[in-house]
Amino acid sequence: MAVGNTDFPVMYPVAGVKLGSANAGIKQTVRDDVLLIELAENSVCAGVFTRNAFCAAPVHVARQHLNRQPRALLINSGNANAGTGEQGMQDALSSCLSVAEQLGLKPEQVLPFSTGVIGEPLPVAKIAAVLGDCQKQFSEAHWPAAAKAIMTTDTVPKGASRQIQIQGQTVTITGIAKGSGMIHPDMATMLCFIATDAKVEQALLQTILNQACNASFNRITVDGDTSTNDACILMASGHSKAPEIKPDTDAFQRFSEAVNEIAGRLAELIIRDGEGATKLIRIRVEQAANHHEALAVGKTIAHSPLVKTAFFASDPNWGRILAAVGRAGVENLNLEDVEIFLGDVCIVQDGGRALSYTEAAGQKVMQQEEITVRVVLKRGEVMEDILTCDFSYDYVRINAEYRT
Amino acid sequence: MAVGNTDFPVMYPVAGVKLGSANAGIKQTVRDDVLLIELAENSVCAGVFTRNAFCAAPVHVARQHLNRQPRALLINSGNANAGTGEQGMQDALSSCLSVAEQLGLKPEQVLPFSTGVIGEPLPVAKIAAVLGDCQKQFSEAHWPAAAKAIMTTDTVPKGASRQIQIQGQTVTITGIAKGSGMIHPDMATMLCFIATDAKVEQALLQTILNQACNASFNRITVDGDTSTNDACILMASGHSKAPEIKPDTDAFQRFSEAVNEIAGRLAELIIRDGEGATKLIRIRVEQAANHHEALAVGKTIAHSPLVKTAFFASDPNWGRILAAVGRAGVENLNLEDVEIFLGDVCIVQDGGRALSYTEAAGQKVMQQEEITVRVVLKRGEVMEDILTCDFSYDYVRINAEYRT
Repeated sequence: MAVGNTDFPVMYPVAGVKLGSANAGIKQTVRDDVLLIELAENSVCAGVFTRNAFCAAPVHVARQHLNRQPRALLINSGNANAGTGEQGMQDALSSCLSVAEQLGLKPEQVLPFSTGVIGEPLPVAKIAAVLGDCQKQFSEAHWPAAAKAIMTTDTVPKGASRQIQIQGQTVTITGIAKGSGMIHPDMATMLCFIATDAKVEQALLQTILNQACNASFNRITVDGDTSTNDACILMASGHSKAPEIKPDTDAFQRFSEAVNEIAGRLAELIIRDGEGATKLIRIRVEQAANHHEALAVGKTIAHSPLVKTAFFASDPNWGRILAAVGRAGVENLNLEDVEIFLGDVCIVQDGGRALSYTEAAGQKVMQQEEITVRVVLKRGEVMEDILTCDFSYDYVRINAEYRT
Repeated sequence: MAVGNTDFPVMYPVAGVKLGSANAGIKQTVRDDVLLIELAENSVCAGVFTRNAFCAAPVHVARQHLNRQPRALLINSGNANAGTGEQGMQDALSSCLSVAEQLGLKPEQVLPFSTGVIGEPLPVAKIAAVLGDCQKQFSEAHWPAAAKAIMTTDTVPKGASRQIQIQGQTVTITGIAKGSGMIHPDMATMLCFIATDAKVEQALLQTILNQACNASFNRITVDGDTSTNDACILMASGHSKAPEIKPDTDAFQRFSEAVNEIAGRLAELIIRDGEGATKLIRIRVEQAANHHEALAVGKTIAHSPLVKTAFFASDPNWGRILAAVGRAGVENLNLEDVEIFLGDVCIVQDGGRALSYTEAAGQKVMQQEEITVRVVLKRGEVMEDILTCDFSYDYVRINAEYRT
């Protein structure tokens, strides 16, 4: 069960971006598991990929194809085509070839993405067999079904959509994401596809995407594991009547903000749907000397199994938070200065439990479904947020049973 | 339930080291929770302490008192006296004063240690009230009861004992440890007290202890959390008839090895008793270019909740191990070179699943209670071992219910 508001929103169609999905029976028989996206001519794509050294075959191929006038994206769930060696590379390339033949493109104009079990051969024939079905469904309104087709252990489809006005013309930005476990800063186990009809040069689009990923997907964690397959793609068809978005303009500013909002919402949805999650936890580190130490403190707390199990138990065990701050590697940290708040309740002050703190007040905050932990370092003016979730029996169950 | 052989051994008494324990009712009423150790005159102590910046009050005090001719150690379980601010320091010092009055020592000759819940005031009156009872029990043979008195979430008492001969004279080394959760390299949530009747200068004793800790307690992890209270003490009474142990001698070599064995066995016992553990897992990284990268790979695998839940499920999910190797931050890692073995079964070769691998062979290894994962990097000649355990429902239960 996902935490709090995960309502699937109205998804505005993006002119020049058609989607179709089908069930290839890769891992399951009930849900669509193949998604095909066709981009209008002259579209451009930006991409951010996993930094895991063992990255999956489709990641290698998608990265290579990104700047070769991409016209189609092929996404499958149920099989990650990772740890599959030379055969995996061949399978990713042959899938691109199948799509190219189906849509009349060159193979290098196809970006492949896979998510699911690692180390099993990709069932390329099954996937190729349903490309025609995907094409028959092509529609700019297919986003809700697309969001479902890319799910693995996700319990809810994840979407976000915005429209902004640029010089009186509408620009649409619509995105979907999947991801639930293996979620960690520097690209979670997630796939994210955001499309817009804005006109933007590729290099600028990449800048906008880098910045949006850094502020969203690189600030979330479920379990500290970084996936082999992570990818976030921002594609722009240029079909909007709005003028081209140029750097350092008001339009650039507002477009970037809208992309940030979409990425931020999708990242939050991934945490709300974290494997076994019962609570959404925001770790806000304030008054840090720099971003590095703010993130180190935030991530150390967010990764601590002891902190996460305490949140699961609604136990205001601030000692575990304190211990995590203490081992985050911040040099010359003056413990007497550090304050920690659970919601509005001050729990740590002067190196120990705050005098005003009562267990009842702490308990009250801990029983909420969404909790903010604020750690005030009093060393500078930098703030960083990390989003995470608690650690429950269900996390163990889901990950112990994943392949069975 | 601890994993495999955790039998409590014959504990050889150490001449010049007396122990007594009592129940002060700090957190529970059934088991002894206060241990008092008295050292003969002219004993010397070496110590290694937590590197957590938020270290507990008794750690500060014990570190300060270490070189002031220590004659007594006071250990309580059930309350960590951590995150207790100025009051915590006063409580640690006043406990030392109580012991000093009881035994006719100076307060700075007492080393205090606490383990248990963080952030609760230490019940100093309760502890002071049972010091007389502890003293009445003083005996060099009290080690088994001492091992029980320092337990918190431990399910078994942990002890190790050796005797070696130096120039025809017996030297005894006997140690106890506690620790189960919050176990992480660079001192786990653990207390360890090792005593010997050897004659050793303090500086040399410290060298021997540093080296032993580095090879044992700094190579184990349960959950990646480093405690506020970790301490490992090696005390030497000098009461053996064997001659003083001098550097660079055969006696030094054999004594060091015996201390290493004791520390290694106690560290292994802590992992066997890891919170919720059902399996003991040794991560052996071979052919690394240096210790840094060997440890980075070993720890990344050992900390991965996805790897640990797969071990719990007896699932040979080598993809998760592969993904952990890939995100360990080893520069210019050539994936095609890496081999991974589960026991004797090669599971990864040439960047993918080994051709010879069968699921049945992997399953067979995974169902064992003690498993070695070997990661062969083929970059050099360095090897490192990390010991860890799996991640079970019971880990969540134990840590969710700890304070309730």
